[in-house]
Amino acid sequence: MAQKPSIPKGTRDFTPVEMAGRNYIFDTIRSVFKLYGYAPIETPAMENLSTLLGKYGDEGDKLLFKVLNSGDAFSKVEISQYQQDTEEGVKINSNALSLKVCEKGLRYDLTVPFARFVVQHQNEIALPFKRYQIQPVWRADRPQKGRYREFYQCDVDVVGSKSLINELELVQMVDMVFSRFGINVCIKINNRKILSGLAEVAKCPDKLIDITVAIDKIDKIGLDAVKDELRDKGLSEEAIAVIEPVLTLSGSNTEKIAVIRTLMSESEIGSKGVAELEELFNLIEGVGVSQLVEIDLSLARGLNYYTGAIFEVKALDYQIGSICGGGRYDDLTGIFGLPNTSGVGISFGADRIYDVLKGLDKFPKDAIATTQVLFTNMGSSESSFALKVMKTLREAGISCEIYADGGKLRKQFEYADKRGIQYLAIVGESELEGGFVTLKDLTSGEQKQLSADDIVVLLSK
Amino acid sequence: MAQKPSIPKGTRDFTPVEMAGRNYIFDTIRSVFKLYGYAPIETPAMENLSTLLGKYGDEGDKLLFKVLNSGDAFSKVEISQYQQDTEEGVKINSNALSLKVCEKGLRYDLTVPFARFVVQHQNEIALPFKRYQIQPVWRADRPQKGRYREFYQCDVDVVGSKSLINELELVQMVDMVFSRFGINVCIKINNRKILSGLAEVAKCPDKLIDITVAIDKIDKIGLDAVKDELRDKGLSEEAIAVIEPVLTLSGSNTEKIAVIRTLMSESEIGSKGVAELEELFNLIEGVGVSQLVEIDLSLARGLNYYTGAIFEVKALDYQIGSICGGGRYDDLTGIFGLPNTSGVGISFGADRIYDVLKGLDKFPKDAIATTQVLFTNMGSSESSFALKVMKTLREAGISCEIYADGGKLRKQFEYADKRGIQYLAIVGESELEGGFVTLKDLTSGEQKQLSADDIVVLLSK
Repeated sequence: MAQKPSIPKGTRDFTPVEMAGRNYIFDTIRSVFKLYGYAPIETPAMENLSTLLGKYGDEGDKLLFKVLNSGDAFSKVEISQYQQDTEEGVKINSNALSLKVCEKGLRYDLTVPFARFVVQHQNEIALPFKRYQIQPVWRADRPQKGRYREFYQCDVDVVGSKSLINELELVQMVDMVFSRFGINVCIKINNRKILSGLAEVAKCPDKLIDITVAIDKIDKIGLDAVKDELRDKGLSEEAIAVIEPVLTLSGSNTEKIAVIRTLMSESEIGSKGVAELEELFNLIEGVGVSQLVEIDLSLARGLNYYTGAIFEVKALDYQIGSICGGGRYDDLTGIFGLPNTSGVGISFGADRIYDVLKGLDKFPKDAIATTQVLFTNMGSSESSFALKVMKTLREAGISCEIYADGGKLRKQFEYADKRGIQYLAIVGESELEGGFVTLKDLTSGEQKQLSADDIVVLLSK
Repeated sequence: MAQKPSIPKGTRDFTPVEMAGRNYIFDTIRSVFKLYGYAPIETPAMENLSTLLGKYGDEGDKLLFKVLNSGDAFSKVEISQYQQDTEEGVKINSNALSLKVCEKGLRYDLTVPFARFVVQHQNEIALPFKRYQIQPVWRADRPQKGRYREFYQCDVDVVGSKSLINELELVQMVDMVFSRFGINVCIKINNRKILSGLAEVAKCPDKLIDITVAIDKIDKIGLDAVKDELRDKGLSEEAIAVIEPVLTLSGSNTEKIAVIRTLMSESEIGSKGVAELEELFNLIEGVGVSQLVEIDLSLARGLNYYTGAIFEVKALDYQIGSICGGGRYDDLTGIFGLPNTSGVGISFGADRIYDVLKGLDKFPKDAIATTQVLFTNMGSSESSFALKVMKTLREAGISCEIYADGGKLRKQFEYADKRGIQYLAIVGESELEGGFVTLKDLTSGEQKQLSADDIVVLLSK
């Protein structure tokens, strides 16, 4: 086989260096989730297609990876049922046939499997159920820069509780996670009920998305251009006049809330949204967070999905899309037969967080460190001695390895260099006789003669 | 939708309790791998079918889960090319058609993707390349007790080194992992070259598997019955006489090696195997291991795959199949065009290790512990105070949560109980006034009035 092997487009291998960075991200996030009482679950990569289909819209259905039934998938298929005569000849109804020969599909997100999990295990779990889940998902999207067909999602959700304390704790977790990462972020908050209220008071409920898109552009194109755009979208002058205070919303969160409250006074749902937003900001102020938190009415992510709070997190010092987002959905599990179970959650974008940490050089050196010490192998007596020293080091928690095959010292040096190993432990004839190791710091060039215990003292954290 | 949702047969959901146990297993194994200089990689769930097909035998090919091409998988297929006239009518060539409409398959193990990875990234990695990989694999096997269609593999391998120090370090890692688990095991070692030598000196190279199967039964059915079985399998009396010393092999590892050495004196490959085995045992003796290590010539796992050492680990105090196994393969990457790259590795059976730890009650309490403290919610002033105390606790690394929705105290108690939370932090009117928390140990029933700092001191590890 002359051709180099490859992997399917849109998928990735992760090398040790990349894995170290990714594990640092997941470990940090996990440790914070745990402090807040969230516990991990995992669900299978394959779900029944009946679980997945119809949950992500028509576009989503097309992006599901379907898994061919095992065994002779086609042997019992009456192919003629899936063929149609067309002007260009006999054609196959690809969609219908694929549903016949595929009963399973790959997980498209973690939300639908979570809803399925809650309903399926409702008698085993305690409500409210606080779970996190870090697993890959698959989408048959057209691959492009930053968009993959396999990528990890990192979701944290609670179901079975309507209290805004949950929203608060999500904000606190985001705050703690990014503070631990050393990344400055802005946590943007909106409320779907306010958007509904806005459309209600402007008397154009069908223009919800146009309005939020326009609000989002105000900083870039200015008030007049935004108004023009709204006119183009068919909004009346009256409607534009009503929402104008929202377009020019500025000041502190308290000031913003005051403006919105006045605007929403005629709308029941809008007023409810304002009350929720105000309560959440009071809770946040009560405990205090270190990152920036701000009201942003242009947040519209998952609009036909969220029913209360909407969250999005942006990195302040690095140009990239949102690195975290989520919100409240009042009927997550209804699709699987368990109605009236409200949930709220957020999802951390591991790939983008990786890019930010790398771009800002914020990965802690020890988190992505490789083996600490490479022992040379200069013969069997020397390596026997080295292996005993290594045993002591490992029992003390110091990672080390030996260049097992031995050979030229130069080659052993090169390996240490290529692997980014900081210390070379040279064990030659004189070391063997003296019962010590010559430890060379490859960064500084400094070298010392040390016993196993000396090395433990030097390198232990 | 009245019917409860379900998951594909042979797959599993993991609840928080199961996840805690599994994470403890993976974290322990990972920490040991790291001490030995092994670094993590991950490969995509989907590989090109061309990478997977033909690597696991005809049986394995049938057990691959194939992923339907995205888009209109069937639209360009000339169905007639896949139809055959048979006596029972027109039939579809299921296999050929499935390869036409599926270009990708789910990972069947971690070894082939690893080999593919090494070849594909050969210019980026340093040889010897020491990697571990903990990821799920999928097999369309008939599900049964303990056999799943999706399960995690946990592999550690080094390629590009022929030194037996690698075998030693694998044994050391196994020793350390199971010692950390508190599980007593027997590490069984064989060498494929000795088995080849045995068949050579007995002049029946085709009976290799029959011989190893027979050796394996000696303890259960005795020497005579084993000989009968070998006769049934077509071995001559001469052949049986030659291998008899192996059937009755006993004593220390040194004694066993002496017997095998004599037996193998006429076989070049057999003698090579004896030399390897002896060197490995010398290395093991040199560093010392705490678990039992023993020569077992009946070990034949992966026989047409391994070329040197063969390993298997059995739990001593719990009845279950092998919990770990592996060996050396001299040409892992040859199938992908990179010949002469020897590798050796082992795989830890996470599901079985879980069963052993559970069966022997060896999961450490704190490893599988849930949230430490549940705060009651008895109103908004009380919860505001509680949230501030919780902030202090979390900053000190203590996991806690609040029963966000409030309501009857009895319900809040029940939730703590159902979740297995040890401490209930009661914050009522008097606590609010006094600025303290009543911390109740739900195990002992004891309760104390404490400040946030007191709780930190009490519960910090």
